Amino acid sequence: MQGTWKPDPASQLPLHSQISSYFLAKISSGAWPPGMRLAPQRELCRMLGVNRSTVVTALGQLTALGLIEGRRGGGTVVVADARSAIRPAGESNVVTAPAEPERRGNWNDYVEEGIHYPNLPTVQDINRLEYEPGLIRLGTGEPAPELLPGAAMNRVLAGLSQRILPPLSYEEPLGNPALRAAVSRMLARSGIAADPASILITSGALQGLQLIALGLLPRGSSILLEKPSYLYSIHAFQSAGVKFSGLPMDGRGLIPELLTAEAVRSKAAMLYSIPSFHNPTGILMDAGRRRELMQVTGSLGLPILEDGAYQELWLDAPPPLPLKALDREGRVLHLGTLSKAASPGLRIGWIVGPEPVVRRLADIKMQSDYGASSLSQLAAASWLEGGYHEEHLQVLRSRLRERRDLMLELLQLHCAGLATWSVPAGGFYIWLSLLHPMPPRKLFTAALRAGLLLNTGDLYDRSDRGHLRLSYAYASPAELERGITLLANLIREVP
Amino acid sequence: MQGTWKPDPASQLPLHSQISSYFLAKISSGAWPPGMRLAPQRELCRMLGVNRSTVVTALGQLTALGLIEGRRGGGTVVVADARSAIRPAGESNVVTAPAEPERRGNWNDYVEEGIHYPNLPTVQDINRLEYEPGLIRLGTGEPAPELLPGAAMNRVLAGLSQRILPPLSYEEPLGNPALRAAVSRMLARSGIAADPASILITSGALQGLQLIALGLLPRGSSILLEKPSYLYSIHAFQSAGVKFSGLPMDGRGLIPELLTAEAVRSKAAMLYSIPSFHNPTGILMDAGRRRELMQVTGSLGLPILEDGAYQELWLDAPPPLPLKALDREGRVLHLGTLSKAASPGLRIGWIVGPEPVVRRLADIKMQSDYGASSLSQLAAASWLEGGYHEEHLQVLRSRLRERRDLMLELLQLHCAGLATWSVPAGGFYIWLSLLHPMPPRKLFTAALRAGLLLNTGDLYDRSDRGHLRLSYAYASPAELERGITLLANLIREVP
Repeated sequence: MQGTWKPDPASQLPLHSQISSYFLAKISSGAWPPGMRLAPQRELCRMLGVNRSTVVTALGQLTALGLIEGRRGGGTVVVADARSAIRPAGESNVVTAPAEPERRGNWNDYVEEGIHYPNLPTVQDINRLEYEPGLIRLGTGEPAPELLPGAAMNRVLAGLSQRILPPLSYEEPLGNPALRAAVSRMLARSGIAADPASILITSGALQGLQLIALGLLPRGSSILLEKPSYLYSIHAFQSAGVKFSGLPMDGRGLIPELLTAEAVRSKAAMLYSIPSFHNPTGILMDAGRRRELMQVTGSLGLPILEDGAYQELWLDAPPPLPLKALDREGRVLHLGTLSKAASPGLRIGWIVGPEPVVRRLADIKMQSDYGASSLSQLAAASWLEGGYHEEHLQVLRSRLRERRDLMLELLQLHCAGLATWSVPAGGFYIWLSLLHPMPPRKLFTAALRAGLLLNTGDLYDRSDRGHLRLSYAYASPAELERGITLLANLIREVP
Repeated sequence: MQGTWKPDPASQLPLHSQISSYFLAKISSGAWPPGMRLAPQRELCRMLGVNRSTVVTALGQLTALGLIEGRRGGGTVVVADARSAIRPAGESNVVTAPAEPERRGNWNDYVEEGIHYPNLPTVQDINRLEYEPGLIRLGTGEPAPELLPGAAMNRVLAGLSQRILPPLSYEEPLGNPALRAAVSRMLARSGIAADPASILITSGALQGLQLIALGLLPRGSSILLEKPSYLYSIHAFQSAGVKFSGLPMDGRGLIPELLTAEAVRSKAAMLYSIPSFHNPTGILMDAGRRRELMQVTGSLGLPILEDGAYQELWLDAPPPLPLKALDREGRVLHLGTLSKAASPGLRIGWIVGPEPVVRRLADIKMQSDYGASSLSQLAAASWLEGGYHEEHLQVLRSRLRERRDLMLELLQLHCAGLATWSVPAGGFYIWLSLLHPMPPRKLFTAALRAGLLLNTGDLYDRSDRGHLRLSYAYASPAELERGITLLANLIREVP
């Protein structure tokens, strides 16, 4: 039911007939197969822009045809396939129906049986609702469209269009050599010495996580990570049978003493950490902690997966050297991305690590999608080589600084007495601690009704009942003002 | 050891010292971690462009330092990490080595333990060797660079660079709406009615396969497929614990009677088929067979995964309607791609299927890489909407026709009496049947020494000893002439 079809009020056909015809066509083409659950009536009204009685009439017509059925406990399900459906005029019956087919269930079983976990329901809602206009997105982890490079990206494309382009063939397993060289130079500026043979280009840092989950960890192994963490909100590792062991943080980041005990107890195979401007808490691990962490994990022989997605986005002062820059043993894998600072839509990230490791991951990438888009890789190489990236970062930092400061002001104004919050030195996020816990799904739903899209704390720690990940990167200043006011009211009112 | 570093003969330093310094730096930075196996000496000589004694001297120096070790049975392995290595001048010891660290093995264990299977050794070799200049690629499944759109793609990019681009943000889970609309119109021309809500954009058709393997099939399920098949050469399904049940073909494609028995025996969950210009055999399933197949699988209630990667690339006459066009039950998932006809490097493909199925797959895609490159999706939408695609197909078909005819002529000239072959009506491939079987790895290696890169039949059917997948799409006409001559000599000579 995604898509934009709506009945036409100007048509001579009544709205309910238009709806039942549209649904009938979906069912008889197989696009809505038996077993598919229709959206709840309230949702259908919203999507179709009609009132409840129209939807009820249309569904009644389809029920009478034996195509759908109301289920006890609510919900309407498609029950017949095209064989029993009345075909829309003009379609011929190409397949002859055999007598009494032996049925093997329907797509519903398939959709539920695959090994990859679905996204959390709230994440699914967020992924869908982000494309509905009119909502204020208070938690979105990407820069607002107006913070993305517009004219500069046009210049990059114009440059590409005037060059004799290399044909857009498949790229080498590790990725486009010019891009790897550009990333290597960029990493050097952050203190990481990595030559192009140690760099694998991925389709965003997220794919890097999936490759590592599939390529380096056996089923049943476990990894240490900060709790809460972004990693809890995706299922790359859990779908690969990897368990999580969450570690507490203080204002300086992970606490090394607690790490050792948990590493031994859980027989951890790896530590995942976001040392700079942690997602979702915004915490910056300080230089002392980084050294301690390297030492402690060194004596455990514990590899580290360092997520550097936000490290360039410092707002007050550059962060300490990345863990990878402190690594002389090849024990750290480092993830980077252009999604947070430049353009999420390029889908360009990278993994830096020992050559045998990045080659293993490249081999899986070749089996997954045959490499990242060549066009994106060419554009990314021009973006980095042309100096656009550094220039854009300057502007982006100052815009983010303004928005961070505005959000902090607004929180002070509206949420004092309702919550406390972190003051991030970079990245996108403020971690809001509600003074009174509340059921996250209830808050999410109430917020949605008020026009707010929230990222509740349970996405990053299943048991969390008292936090929100706020982002100052996406909503406009005006939306921030309105959004934080609405949020304060909600926190006050939701029982 | 990928990459392009070679010692400099003009330097004052002897070649062996340059090599040992380079290796030392790799080892002490952790890029070459303990446990990593170096390439065999012969390979090192080739890669470094030096003779055997130079390599032996360099390795001897590193062995003396305790950094590498020769292993019984051949091979040299990195044994020490940076703690025991002599650091290159100018690098300081940032990490303090703790006394007697408790070691947890090394990356080698990790690289071997992940759940995703590695590519077959021959596929790994091919993926690497495709970027070595000078080899004639007789089996490559992509169009030659000169057959890819050059100027037209520049025009597409120039068009994009002059538009006010939408910011390159993340796209909707199903993919860019304009691209899905363009794909929907394109599919309509091949007889497939699918509206944009039934279409998921993927990073190439290969990713579509991976999403289906992860999203729709439980561990231990099995799928039917043609044998040989492209699907045997990748590990998306096997890595997800899915078993294969291979089915024989005749000149008209899959044999429906045999399918039923095997479907029942193996309790198959799905049939994978490439009905048009099958990879690797080139077989075109005729219209009668397609109808029978739909009927037989219909009475089994068996879903079909139709790979339509080659269906546009007909050379003699358009193929019969795709299976998806015969499907009124939503039982067929259809895969398509721009990689074979337009540009592999765009990494744009699609899955067409019932809405709940594509939404499930979209959800996994969001967890895998957050969607395909927006830039690629924008370029692909312009490419299709601007009519470039149809125009390019005309040219491509006529070039492929010439190359196919040339390859057939050359086979007649040089391989009559050594092999027989298929005469494909479209796609890229000629399936060569050797009259005398030979060990495929031996043939592959001998060919490589002669400057030929071959795709041996065992990639598509593990037990095969008598076939080659030849492609007329990649090698130039001059290379085809030289390549087929060399190939005939090899077949004659390899014992």
